[in-house]
Amino acid sequence: MKYPNIPSIDTDAVQKARARQNSLTKPAGSLGRLEDISIRLAGMKADPCPSVSRKAVIIMAADHGVALEGVSAFPAEVTPQMVLNFLHGGAAINVLARQAEASVTVVDIGVAYDFDPSLPGLLHRKIAKGTRNMAKGPAMTRKEAEKAIILGMNVLNEIADKGLDLVATGDMGIGNTTPSSAIVAVMTGLPVSKVTGRGTGVDDAGLAHKVKIIEQAIALNRPDPKDALDVFSKVGGLEIAGLAGVIMAAASRRIPIVVDGFISTAAAMIAVGLVPDVRHYLFGAHLSVEIGHRAMHKHLGLTPLMDLNLRLGEGTGATLAFHLIEASSRILREMATFAEAGVSEK
Amino acid sequence: MKYPNIPSIDTDAVQKARARQNSLTKPAGSLGRLEDISIRLAGMKADPCPSVSRKAVIIMAADHGVALEGVSAFPAEVTPQMVLNFLHGGAAINVLARQAEASVTVVDIGVAYDFDPSLPGLLHRKIAKGTRNMAKGPAMTRKEAEKAIILGMNVLNEIADKGLDLVATGDMGIGNTTPSSAIVAVMTGLPVSKVTGRGTGVDDAGLAHKVKIIEQAIALNRPDPKDALDVFSKVGGLEIAGLAGVIMAAASRRIPIVVDGFISTAAAMIAVGLVPDVRHYLFGAHLSVEIGHRAMHKHLGLTPLMDLNLRLGEGTGATLAFHLIEASSRILREMATFAEAGVSEK
Repeated sequence: MKYPNIPSIDTDAVQKARARQNSLTKPAGSLGRLEDISIRLAGMKADPCPSVSRKAVIIMAADHGVALEGVSAFPAEVTPQMVLNFLHGGAAINVLARQAEASVTVVDIGVAYDFDPSLPGLLHRKIAKGTRNMAKGPAMTRKEAEKAIILGMNVLNEIADKGLDLVATGDMGIGNTTPSSAIVAVMTGLPVSKVTGRGTGVDDAGLAHKVKIIEQAIALNRPDPKDALDVFSKVGGLEIAGLAGVIMAAASRRIPIVVDGFISTAAAMIAVGLVPDVRHYLFGAHLSVEIGHRAMHKHLGLTPLMDLNLRLGEGTGATLAFHLIEASSRILREMATFAEAGVSEK
Repeated sequence: MKYPNIPSIDTDAVQKARARQNSLTKPAGSLGRLEDISIRLAGMKADPCPSVSRKAVIIMAADHGVALEGVSAFPAEVTPQMVLNFLHGGAAINVLARQAEASVTVVDIGVAYDFDPSLPGLLHRKIAKGTRNMAKGPAMTRKEAEKAIILGMNVLNEIADKGLDLVATGDMGIGNTTPSSAIVAVMTGLPVSKVTGRGTGVDDAGLAHKVKIIEQAIALNRPDPKDALDVFSKVGGLEIAGLAGVIMAAASRRIPIVVDGFISTAAAMIAVGLVPDVRHYLFGAHLSVEIGHRAMHKHLGLTPLMDLNLRLGEGTGATLAFHLIEASSRILREMATFAEAGVSEK
């Protein structure tokens, strides 16, 4: 398949944004990372005064064959139940998206449940009723993985065609920290035990079992770390592939991506593995409780904006980070300069 | 003088908020610090489902006699210039408060400048045209310090009488990291050099000079660390005293206080030094670049919510933190429970 071209960061807009930050009525650099964010935004959007008023959260939902191995604290039936909760507005991501004035799009890319086809609000794009059990063989075919990426790109493009300044990635899928740990282990070469956490809350025995299942899946499928598509067709998930597509398509359109937690960052690793320049369009929202998250950020060269002990997914951390990114944009656009305000400089 | 009574944290509301967090459609604890914040809010406000919709930033502005010693990178004339910038809406705090839908109140508690008495929007409450030079003698009399605290309490009470759920502390005063470093050095017993930073941006020589001036002020005035009023009348500032009053009055009314950066946290140390139970009503917004800030948080038992390399003051970090605190409140109030949403539990 052909992946999208990623435009270069606009260095002229970066320079103009930096010069403007230094002319605003505050000691230069005193707004720290807010200044850095605004300057990166300018480069991504090729606009020295970028706005991020139109915001979207895209949640990809799918099930995982490996859930049969008992790797999660919650039963798989929770995936479709939570999809319905998203559609009714009762989940954490709905609350946080309302606060951030962001739209929420929920995509069934692979839930093991037959939703009513007339169910309003859901994008019905099911590729399969979940992946196959990676502990017994490849989770997907290469063809299915490609299909999921293209589907993700299409979803982003449909939303962006209506106007979009900033996108957050969200996930729902019982069992999906398991493929995410497998992806980070394969792509960084770190031992599985160093990048595998408790997900929604397995106990010590559950964690040891989860590590063993991931090790078994990697030993059996032998994914090639140099071939990102091979990695995530063998040990990935449909929602992870879909989010990789969202991320690539957004970067190709100069739309900055706020990467949420452990599962979303696995998707970003895949997207960057396939198209390295995607990395220039990523913001890391927060450092998750999942122990493998730090290795992912290191791999991607991202410094997360917050550390709030989150481990929910759904795009919740990314949507919280929207406020900081919007703040950075507003500072650049709305503050007075020293000259305008008649304030003396250093 | 008589300090206000601080009500106890409502343990019943705390228990109810915790039980509700555990019934919401997410793995218990998966929203990390957002859950903790919401539970603390419930206890502070004696309300199991607290709202924080009415928000205010109070900026106290004052000058410092010690600025004559050349401890700041900016000239003292910037204090009144920035006050005018606040009133015109062009400063960083104005931008961030608009985003957070918070009001901004600007108080002249001690600026060394004669503002036009008809200037709209400014609270004209000048106690003195700045403090005296603490390198040569006490910055204030004990009487002046008390007057500044009462003034701060009155300002908070005036705003709260109109309805207030959450307050952020803000400061403006060229030279005010110098008294703040003096306060933290005296109250923690740490060496001045370990708690003194570059403020708005002095160079290495400037920093060494600043440390020397603070050491001189402490040696000359000999403030008593056990007597918070003695400390900040001798080496404090009028805006710091005013903010200490704001903090005490807010705590007495069960209004949570979001403490901004280095100067605001010095004020919180003074408030807690005078009335220890005030500490239960504080949130630490962010970890400042100023090296003494960490020692302040440790002294107060606060874990800041963000670390964004901020060093501006004005209440900017606290106002950014409003979004996180509002998010925590909305999660508690708006999310569906497992029972309501028909989602299976663990």
